[in-house]
Amino acid sequence: MSNGKENAYFSYDINDRERACFEIGIKLGALYHILCGLPISSNPIIIESIEKGIEASISCQPYVKSVKININRDKIQGNKTTEFEYDELSGISIAATVVLEFNSVEITAKVEWIEELKYPLMFIEKIRNKN
Amino acid sequence: MSNGKENAYFSYDINDRERACFEIGIKLGALYHILCGLPISSNPIIIESIEKGIEASISCQPYVKSVKININRDKIQGNKTTEFEYDELSGISIAATVVLEFNSVEITAKVEWIEELKYPLMFIEKIRNKN
Amino acid sequence: MSNGKENAYFSYDINDRERACFEIGIKLGALYHILCGLPISSNPIIIESIEKGIEASISCQPYVKSVKININRDKIQGNKTTEFEYDELSGISIAATVVLEFNSVEITAKVEWIEELKYPLMFIEKIRNKN
Amino acid sequence: MSNGKENAYFSYDINDRERACFEIGIKLGALYHILCGLPISSNPIIIESIEKGIEASISCQPYVKSVKININRDKIQGNKTTEFEYDELSGISIAATVVLEFNSVEITAKVEWIEELKYPLMFIEKIRNKN
Repeated sequence: MSNGKENAYFSYDINDRERACFEIGIKLGALYHILCGLPISSNPIIIESIEKGIEASISCQPYVKSVKININRDKIQGNKTTEFEYDELSGISIAATVVLEFNSVEITAKVEWIEELKYPLMFIEKIRNKN
Repeated sequence: MSNGKENAYFSYDINDRERACFEIGIKLGALYHILCGLPISSNPIIIESIEKGIEASISCQPYVKSVKININRDKIQGNKTTEFEYDELSGISIAATVVLEFNSVEITAKVEWIEELKYPLMFIEKIRNKN
Repeated sequence: MSNGKENAYFSYDINDRERACFEIGIKLGALYHILCGLPISSNPIIIESIEKGIEASISCQPYVKSVKININRDKIQGNKTTEFEYDELSGISIAATVVLEFNSVEITAKVEWIEELKYPLMFIEKIRNKN
Repeated sequence: MSNGKENAYFSYDINDRERACFEIGIKLGALYHILCGLPISSNPIIIESIEKGIEASISCQPYVKSVKININRDKIQGNKTTEFEYDELSGISIAATVVLEFNSVEITAKVEWIEELKYPLMFIEKIRNKN
């Protein structure tokens, strides 16, 4: 818990569910723009290191309970057979799940590529009151 | 408006206020991590160009009505008297306001350095139903 | 000019041409990773604002004489007809030219998408001694 | 090795030492701007995960032989006692060493905070011909 001084900056009529939605949006927006453009290859050890590194980073942000990044291995091209055969992370290959708690609200949200939308959609999968 | 297919990915029990909170969180998280680390100097023309450029970029994201970036000029050091006298954007110098509409909900949120927290706080300043 | 203290950190056997090559590589690496993932639309005013903003930022770095970013308008999709119709900058759409001077050496380097390599190549176009 | 087609884009008068200087500059510029702004805490497991993740990413880039990131643990504040007690990577805490080979040239370069310059200097530590 923080000491709560930050809450005074929020509009008085924001409830805990709304705050949880705001906070998890921040984390997905940050996570996505941190991942975008990262060099990567199809080597599973490389992919896993990148996943773990950015998970560790995002896990430091306020109210985060867990972060799981699942880079879409089928979309990563380049096995470093030549110097130029590697890839960069972008919307099509990024997938992640964040779980966050704000007061009694637990919320789970994801970013993943939605083929029918041709878009890396960020969406709230679940929200519940723990009490 | 989008065609609404994206809404099917959200938990059924998310209302428009909650969705607006989520969407504006995404924009602030993205905006902040895009700005962090950008080279900058105290030249007002440089500062304004950077502000306008990132405002234009974030304004492309879904549901955004307006973006205003106000880099804290008092915190930017370096007037390029020598090659190394310039600065990089970080939490202490970043301030921005985003206004977003989701269906009938209009929401305003900010990021700014809060001295008492020693933290670049993101917070919801106002949320209202337009109807 | 800087006061020159930084030069003491370099290996004694680096000449001015080599140093110019190093310095311009830094700028292209930074520029590319700053641009990657930026939201963008096909609106020419949006594109130009982003170009000017990042040009202004990179121009603050040591020894830079000029920066020209030329986002490949033919590769940017999304005119914001719906909320989700916009794009993100990536290697295929990024092109830029940096001119830098280190002591008497002037160097020009570029990043641009090379179709035969399927790669956003960074390369030195010209290097010359001004004297 | 790549197939060498990329070399045709370079000015004819760039020798292998100059090319190695250019290539390693690109890697340091990218690495630095990828690290800047990453959330981090003083937890050594978090720090090490971030180091390994970005090392893995940069190691995919052309001609890189090794990358070692050494985040300055003394400069990272925030042990997550409260939700807001964490830090963000910036020039003062970033240190890294890259080793790269281009043809017969092996080059080592670093980025680290230089207190007398108050600047995160990138410099070439060593360059040698392997033959």
